Amino acid sequence: MPTVWDQRYAQRVQRIQGSAIRELLKITEQPGVISLAGGLPASEIFPIEHISAVTQRILETKGQQALQYGSTEGYTPLRELLAHQFIQQGINVSRENIVITSGSQQGLDLLGKVLLNPGDRLLVESPTYMGALQAFNPYEPEYVAIRSDEEGIVTGELEPALQQNPKGMYVLPTFQNPSGVSFTLERRTQLIEMAGRYGVPIIEDDPYSQLRFEGEPLPSLLALEHARQQQGEQRSQPYEGNVVMLNTFSKVLTPGLRVAWIVGPAQVVRKLVLAKQGADLHTATFNQMIAYELTRTGFLEEHVPLLRTLYHERCNAMLAALEAYFPDNVSWTHPQGGLFIWVTLPEGIDTAQLLKDALEYRIAFVPGAAFHADGGGANTMRLSFSNVNSEQIEEGIRRLGKLLHTRM
Amino acid sequence: MPTVWDQRYAQRVQRIQGSAIRELLKITEQPGVISLAGGLPASEIFPIEHISAVTQRILETKGQQALQYGSTEGYTPLRELLAHQFIQQGINVSRENIVITSGSQQGLDLLGKVLLNPGDRLLVESPTYMGALQAFNPYEPEYVAIRSDEEGIVTGELEPALQQNPKGMYVLPTFQNPSGVSFTLERRTQLIEMAGRYGVPIIEDDPYSQLRFEGEPLPSLLALEHARQQQGEQRSQPYEGNVVMLNTFSKVLTPGLRVAWIVGPAQVVRKLVLAKQGADLHTATFNQMIAYELTRTGFLEEHVPLLRTLYHERCNAMLAALEAYFPDNVSWTHPQGGLFIWVTLPEGIDTAQLLKDALEYRIAFVPGAAFHADGGGANTMRLSFSNVNSEQIEEGIRRLGKLLHTRM
Repeated sequence: MPTVWDQRYAQRVQRIQGSAIRELLKITEQPGVISLAGGLPASEIFPIEHISAVTQRILETKGQQALQYGSTEGYTPLRELLAHQFIQQGINVSRENIVITSGSQQGLDLLGKVLLNPGDRLLVESPTYMGALQAFNPYEPEYVAIRSDEEGIVTGELEPALQQNPKGMYVLPTFQNPSGVSFTLERRTQLIEMAGRYGVPIIEDDPYSQLRFEGEPLPSLLALEHARQQQGEQRSQPYEGNVVMLNTFSKVLTPGLRVAWIVGPAQVVRKLVLAKQGADLHTATFNQMIAYELTRTGFLEEHVPLLRTLYHERCNAMLAALEAYFPDNVSWTHPQGGLFIWVTLPEGIDTAQLLKDALEYRIAFVPGAAFHADGGGANTMRLSFSNVNSEQIEEGIRRLGKLLHTRM
Repeated sequence: MPTVWDQRYAQRVQRIQGSAIRELLKITEQPGVISLAGGLPASEIFPIEHISAVTQRILETKGQQALQYGSTEGYTPLRELLAHQFIQQGINVSRENIVITSGSQQGLDLLGKVLLNPGDRLLVESPTYMGALQAFNPYEPEYVAIRSDEEGIVTGELEPALQQNPKGMYVLPTFQNPSGVSFTLERRTQLIEMAGRYGVPIIEDDPYSQLRFEGEPLPSLLALEHARQQQGEQRSQPYEGNVVMLNTFSKVLTPGLRVAWIVGPAQVVRKLVLAKQGADLHTATFNQMIAYELTRTGFLEEHVPLLRTLYHERCNAMLAALEAYFPDNVSWTHPQGGLFIWVTLPEGIDTAQLLKDALEYRIAFVPGAAFHADGGGANTMRLSFSNVNSEQIEEGIRRLGKLLHTRM
């Protein structure tokens, strides 16, 4: 029976689609399925007792403030603490450069809202984080996908796209979701130089850089852009560069708090704050205070190393199992951090089809096509090692390898 | 110094403006200022100890779930409990008709996102809730303001606007922010009949109806639409009507949790869920569980009567003070619930100007112009009695009355 709603939706609704992951998470809730699909942080080491203790203290001492409406910019002590952390890294920002968001997903939505007109060209990696595409899609950009390899975005292929006056670029340069790849220092430097030369803003999504379990830390694009901007200056100027960066507590503390932040030029942050006011007024002060207390007291400095150790062990277990059980003509990435490994199968294998059979083997992964703004990647898949233990990883990869051997 | 950002913002940014209230809240933080501007709930009766107790229990028994990523639709037991409450009121819905939102402000944003194309006509009351205008503005609708009086929206003046094929209508029919006015039953019935006849969707914003301290409860527009839809049906059909309703825990529990919901036809809710996934993935499960526990255990049934009593006392204090101290040629509304009284001054007085002088008298209110989508209302103001005690109310109105007597 038709209703008044049927013909009433906005045009952009055509671009507001569900993610494959979401449907998969439902499927993989079936008993007995080993899910390498979710990409959720390991919940068994959530610091529940610490969170419980600070929650009690916050409610006892600042309960009325924690539970009342708060400012759109975010809880001031948290913004100041985050700014202080950047200053310690040599990046000249203040609380005016920081807005707290309800998860980085909201940060992406707000950036889409203040930047993207329909038809604007937005450069993205191929593959790229599908949640970012979901956030940007309602603003109807035209994506220009730039190839990535084991060293990150292929800067040598970027020039023609930059010449087309794109509105900006979205990249996830460190332990990317879905590929696990990090941009090398050389690629980072080239990217910043080219964006500077062409005057193109960069959205740097950085949820995972704290989760490095191998190799040396690399500077963020924000840090490199800050250095470029300060060249030749007698003294440090407030940050006004081409990069905005999204960070989050989701991967270093817990995702369920929904507390993240954007750091960027003050003028951009002011626009984001106005957009956020219309979008959800503010992020729960209660939740911000919990994140603040656990940061201020140094708890995260004890906690994050535990995460690194756990994910390192799980990543190694998955790499060993891939080596042992997967066919020879399959390749995969070797991440130095984060939550994901990216697998490339021979051309002609469709992982969306493969998943249906995999579920009969009681194993789940994410088909790679959804991470491609330009529709390729049918022969790729994302595997996550973060929320399964080493035994599940070995058994899961064994099952998947068995299935693959039947296909090639 | 120009940056790459200056020329990069989306066109819609011109419509993303800050609210007068937000700036005012900063001003009114000055010591000694009595603020009748904020409209915040009374924080001194937030049930902090109850919240603390359920928080402890949730973290102890369901900590991993509470702090992990959750489903976009919302915490299933909460959606089912809310659906059950509607069923008890005779409204045939299930959890498929409910999406949890990060405050009703997010609900308004999501409705704008799935419904409004640039230039779409959206009917609103005059005055209307300015936060709704802020939520809808980025989607660039054309507002058509319909006059309201002491009985609510003037349905006799609605017909020409309905004939112009509007995309929908946004109304706050019970204890409106800013006016405090409730639509009479007659106006509600007429509105539902007319919207049905013209096939126009209605967004019913209902944050305050639980805060009735005088008079008899009136049916929501959703309930009337449900009844209209069920006429002649042998048995109750799932709700598929023209009304979607926004409800929230912000005014009956605490706003700082940021937990609200939309109830509507399942097809609309599905669209909203997809839009929410891109906007913030999900609302903090932790916060949803707190709201769920305090609802499930019947706590709100004890707590809300305390709110009604407190706001009744404060509303009466304000009405008595207005009678005592305001000039004769000033009129105001007489709300039966909610948080607000609306004051109309003689034509020619500009309350935005008046506010500057009022701050010298150490008293603040919200000038009415910001609540008018069509730019009128310069001689009106919103007063809030919710977060100030009776002594502050009397003293504040006395000061404001003194100022007004110097002007007329």
